[in-house]
Amino acid sequence: MSQAEGVETTDTLSTGDQSNINGGNSTKVDEEMRNDLELAAVYVSDAQYNRNIVFDTSPQGVRLYMLYNHWGLLALVYLLIIANLALALFEDPALFPLPIWVTLVTELICLMAFAGRLFHFGRVVPRDSFWKDAKNICIIVIISLTLLDMVIFGSLKAAGYYGVRWSRVLRPLLLVNITEGRQLRRAFRSIRNALPQILYVFLLFIFSVLMFSLMALKLFGKRGLKTKDGSPYFTNYLQIVFDLYVLVTTANSPDIMMPAYNANIFFAVFFIVYILINTYIFMSVFLAVVYNNYKKYLKEEVRQLVRAKRCKMARAFRVLQEPCGAEPVVTQARWNQLVRLVQPDISSAHRELLWSVSDTEKRGHIGKLAFMQLPDLLNIQVITVKSRPHPLQTWQPTLYSSTASQFICRMVKHKAFVYVYDVIILLNAVFIGLDEENSLISNVEWLFLGLYLLEILLKLYTFEPRAFFSKHQFWNWFDTIIIVSALISTVINSALKSTGGYSSRQILDIVFILRILRLIRVVDSIKRFRTIINTLIKIGPTILTFGQLILVVYYIFAMVGMELFKGKVRFFENGSTDSEHDGYTMVTHVSARIFFVLFHIVVVIIIINIFVAFVLEAFFVEYTVAKSDLQTSLEKKIEELELSVQQEDRDSSLVQSMETAENDLGPSETSKGGPSLMFKIASKRYKTVDGLLQRIFEADLNPEDYEDSDGPSQSDANIQNPAYDAI
Amino acid sequence: MSQAEGVETTDTLSTGDQSNINGGNSTKVDEEMRNDLELAAVYVSDAQYNRNIVFDTSPQGVRLYMLYNHWGLLALVYLLIIANLALALFEDPALFPLPIWVTLVTELICLMAFAGRLFHFGRVVPRDSFWKDAKNICIIVIISLTLLDMVIFGSLKAAGYYGVRWSRVLRPLLLVNITEGRQLRRAFRSIRNALPQILYVFLLFIFSVLMFSLMALKLFGKRGLKTKDGSPYFTNYLQIVFDLYVLVTTANSPDIMMPAYNANIFFAVFFIVYILINTYIFMSVFLAVVYNNYKKYLKEEVRQLVRAKRCKMARAFRVLQEPCGAEPVVTQARWNQLVRLVQPDISSAHRELLWSVSDTEKRGHIGKLAFMQLPDLLNIQVITVKSRPHPLQTWQPTLYSSTASQFICRMVKHKAFVYVYDVIILLNAVFIGLDEENSLISNVEWLFLGLYLLEILLKLYTFEPRAFFSKHQFWNWFDTIIIVSALISTVINSALKSTGGYSSRQILDIVFILRILRLIRVVDSIKRFRTIINTLIKIGPTILTFGQLILVVYYIFAMVGMELFKGKVRFFENGSTDSEHDGYTMVTHVSARIFFVLFHIVVVIIIINIFVAFVLEAFFVEYTVAKSDLQTSLEKKIEELELSVQQEDRDSSLVQSMETAENDLGPSETSKGGPSLMFKIASKRYKTVDGLLQRIFEADLNPEDYEDSDGPSQSDANIQNPAYDAI
Repeated sequence: MSQAEGVETTDTLSTGDQSNINGGNSTKVDEEMRNDLELAAVYVSDAQYNRNIVFDTSPQGVRLYMLYNHWGLLALVYLLIIANLALALFEDPALFPLPIWVTLVTELICLMAFAGRLFHFGRVVPRDSFWKDAKNICIIVIISLTLLDMVIFGSLKAAGYYGVRWSRVLRPLLLVNITEGRQLRRAFRSIRNALPQILYVFLLFIFSVLMFSLMALKLFGKRGLKTKDGSPYFTNYLQIVFDLYVLVTTANSPDIMMPAYNANIFFAVFFIVYILINTYIFMSVFLAVVYNNYKKYLKEEVRQLVRAKRCKMARAFRVLQEPCGAEPVVTQARWNQLVRLVQPDISSAHRELLWSVSDTEKRGHIGKLAFMQLPDLLNIQVITVKSRPHPLQTWQPTLYSSTASQFICRMVKHKAFVYVYDVIILLNAVFIGLDEENSLISNVEWLFLGLYLLEILLKLYTFEPRAFFSKHQFWNWFDTIIIVSALISTVINSALKSTGGYSSRQILDIVFILRILRLIRVVDSIKRFRTIINTLIKIGPTILTFGQLILVVYYIFAMVGMELFKGKVRFFENGSTDSEHDGYTMVTHVSARIFFVLFHIVVVIIIINIFVAFVLEAFFVEYTVAKSDLQTSLEKKIEELELSVQQEDRDSSLVQSMETAENDLGPSETSKGGPSLMFKIASKRYKTVDGLLQRIFEADLNPEDYEDSDGPSQSDANIQNPAYDAI
Repeated sequence: MSQAEGVETTDTLSTGDQSNINGGNSTKVDEEMRNDLELAAVYVSDAQYNRNIVFDTSPQGVRLYMLYNHWGLLALVYLLIIANLALALFEDPALFPLPIWVTLVTELICLMAFAGRLFHFGRVVPRDSFWKDAKNICIIVIISLTLLDMVIFGSLKAAGYYGVRWSRVLRPLLLVNITEGRQLRRAFRSIRNALPQILYVFLLFIFSVLMFSLMALKLFGKRGLKTKDGSPYFTNYLQIVFDLYVLVTTANSPDIMMPAYNANIFFAVFFIVYILINTYIFMSVFLAVVYNNYKKYLKEEVRQLVRAKRCKMARAFRVLQEPCGAEPVVTQARWNQLVRLVQPDISSAHRELLWSVSDTEKRGHIGKLAFMQLPDLLNIQVITVKSRPHPLQTWQPTLYSSTASQFICRMVKHKAFVYVYDVIILLNAVFIGLDEENSLISNVEWLFLGLYLLEILLKLYTFEPRAFFSKHQFWNWFDTIIIVSALISTVINSALKSTGGYSSRQILDIVFILRILRLIRVVDSIKRFRTIINTLIKIGPTILTFGQLILVVYYIFAMVGMELFKGKVRFFENGSTDSEHDGYTMVTHVSARIFFVLFHIVVVIIIINIFVAFVLEAFFVEYTVAKSDLQTSLEKKIEELELSVQQEDRDSSLVQSMETAENDLGPSETSKGGPSLMFKIASKRYKTVDGLLQRIFEADLNPEDYEDSDGPSQSDANIQNPAYDAI
């Protein structure tokens, strides 16, 4: 191994060149070393993305495992899962009917792909751990049952009998049980762990509802009161229980109260007390119980995750370590190779920065503790700001540096420019609100489009285009896409209108939506709003996990509900369903209510509360936790290297600004006299949900969790998939 | 001062006698000492109940202040405030109309009483601090304005003109501004402090609603859709904004969506996205912001409270201190006198216990630090369990000790006895659910009443009656009261029925409610339920504070709403209001909606969220915080003294059982061989709301807050009423 390779990177730091990754100047490494590096890279990658898979560590096993983790295969699996779930839209009773054989064949293809994926997984992991993993058993059972159902259904159909595709209920479980459904499984585990606690509160809540119902029966049942549609009021106990349960959601309030209220105004007290106890107090207690359990178990799970991560990094270290004095170390050269393998798209400058954070004493090698930081360092998004001159300056230096040109640049960078455009947006909002049939107003729309286009062009003239359209300039991308799309669709619409006098409703809809989306821009001008929105955007990915959770639950309920009520509820011409309240019980049976109550319990009492708990927790973290230690050390290093972009004054308000200096990015100004390459930390944007979760609980985690997990025998047990990994 | 007095109390410990408090064996103390003691007692009482009033420390001032704090005067003030608020029921437009002069005279009496109370307060506090206190100014202004309004209204009425009693809006503000409304003012301050943060989220939320409304106008307005009642759908922007705002509460869902949904099924996506963003995400963010602010400011306020408490205790110590060695101390004799003055109803044994906790080294005097604990010690509820023989044992020893009698006692104490009665209660529930017109069933009711009565008698036979009906045996009291009331009302009802065949509806209602309340007992048998209910009962007093808060807000809105919509909405025969949606805008003006939106914002977005925040916080404290240090030291002392009642095994579940050993209290068994007097700590039941709040934040409070606040000059500033004490 050449110890000299480390020299190369200090050069690239100043040139900012991204080549040399597979270049010829690296010395030929022998096969074994290459295998070691690949193994270590897989460990680091697993640690970075918190994968907990015990794989065969032979070179073939590692490559098979790398293939298994390839994003292409992963995307294909998700695509097929979506296709499989979407089949419900085309199956009887279908929204868009397709022949049965089309859906059956599609489902068969999906199942084959899932089986293939599982077979691949079986090759990657040791045989015994494959069969011990409940997830795999689940997938095998789901596939088998689905095949069985398809055969039965097909035979019944062929014989002309009526068949039910009961295995459709199982489809969303595939989403839960695939290897990559970690977050989803964790959410389900959170729920399952909270269930015993919720159960007791729930029983008490039901007891309360039953007691109030009995009281209502006795108080109101004998008074001969009538409901609005003339039926007897509160005479049937089960009906009362259902009505009062619905009252908890306030959906039938105040209708349910009115007959009693009309009989005697003081009966309102009964309903007020009921709502106070069951809606406000019990629902708050549900939230408290769910929130508390969510926090408790999540903390435990994240602790396990961190332990597994450390354990994997310890293994990677053992693979790469070289003796040096008392303690084994990893040299910079090997570290560089490793990082290139783990993250091929990382710039040399960025890599160099990470190294200098790890090797604080500039010894050319790092010990175990510094090496362990690598996945966390890789998970911190560092934006490399390259200070290039504006292309016009290179191309037309005299023109671009002229007084008029300089004036334009100064004008665009001035605060008033933003304010002027805020006023334009508000004016635009008023015009949008007006009737667009008026030809004057529709012409004014062209003026606004022109103004917005001018703004983008002016900004492109002032700022370096590649900096303007860099990866993290969300609002610039947003503006440009919205404006260009609006321009295109408005032109198409006008063309259609002028040629045939015909205007497509769909295109008009798109034009309107784009126009209105444009107005969102005004929020970005006000810093406080930007920070709130950034926080919301940040918790977005995790909300997606909840989206999946809700999808699974909705899908299962939808499938069951579809079979229960298929074709039973009819729509009348005016759009209302059967005018009778509780129409669904009219067409099936009163017990159908159980289905709806169950749905309410699962979705509202459990899932919505877990969702609220997550949003609360994520916001509290934003409020209270300063940047984690690791980030601070990285930032300190950037400052030390005098490569830091001047950051805006941090706002001590609601939520700290996440993407600082985003709007007033002026590379041409800050670069004057400074270095030509700068780093900026997109500090609090975590690449993975796990990263955010780990940060949430970092403060509470026991420091010793970072230290132990050394022995290979013990660590094997640690990174084992938890026993309840599947549901 | 006799140092010998301390001896007396060690005797009373074993006899458990509660006399000797104003007995003749205490030596004559001179006048100055008596004044000192009274001053110190007032300081301790202020510290115990967290009163922050700067009063004149002369003997006359102290007595005036003690009179001001007398519970009788306080009760009178609250009674008059309730009377004043209740006047709205009797004023035009009245529920129970009374002549105008009656309500005017009643209001005048209330106002005079409030003015008198304020005058009293002005005599107690120094002149300058009286006029600096915004609360007092508020009350003066309210009284003046109300008098002015009464004069104007009276004159207008006398002249036959129409008058509006606008000052009625001010009435609930009296509740806020009286000296004792501390908790309420604190809740209002919490809200005011959270407002700036809420405002930004709220503006963003409103922006989102406006944007969605604009989109709805453009998407649906031109399609010529009709709502269910045939009016054009989504054509008026302000109407859309209102409808979508209401959709946030889900009150008009799915009606508002149906026309669009019927036109194109995919328009449902618009409404789903709207509800996701505005109902789920924004409402969660509101809760997060409110909760976070609530916690933050409350912590600061409680810190100030603790500081003021320490400061007052330091003053009390300075008054009572006697030189002894290097540091001044308070002797046991003076301490005893002090505690008797502060809490005359405390038993000598209890006082002795508190002393032995303070004076751990048994030196007969305590230093400043130990003295400071006194208000906290007094706020811990210690239940003194006196082990007396059953009166029957004294009266009929042979009979009571006979085998049959012993068998009955064993039977009642057996677990099966509880289970049998649980089954009886459940059977009873079934019979209640059945038709009570049936004579068999109404006769069975007598059987159940007899069984319940038998249960109480058996328990009274087995357990010592005074222990059975001791202050903290909530469920025993509950059972007895319910059963006896049910017996009385059933007898009255039967008597009425048998004599005239007439049965009073009111009495029947009472009978039914009592019968059903009896069923609550079954909850108490299941420990998990008991613990949840105990937690709910514990946070009950603070919920009362929120009740006051909501009362204030509702009252103000009700008064305004009454004047706005008086007599405008009419009821039809069948009990429904004007069948048109938005009936109130039909009879007044569309802008009347502002009133309802404002009400929703204030009550739902702000107050309900603060309420949920409080319940969450209180539950989390129950989950996580073990007993505070002080309680543990008290408990340790009880154990040391070997006077502890054997406690049930603590349940590590949901919430630790608060009132342990409540149901299976068997003094005659535990007393065998043990001492005849035992203590039990009703550990987590705090006497005051402040106590609970202080406990909530105790863990976070800086320890130095307990140490400083010594100098008299600085501490004066500390216990000043906060600048914003009034609203």
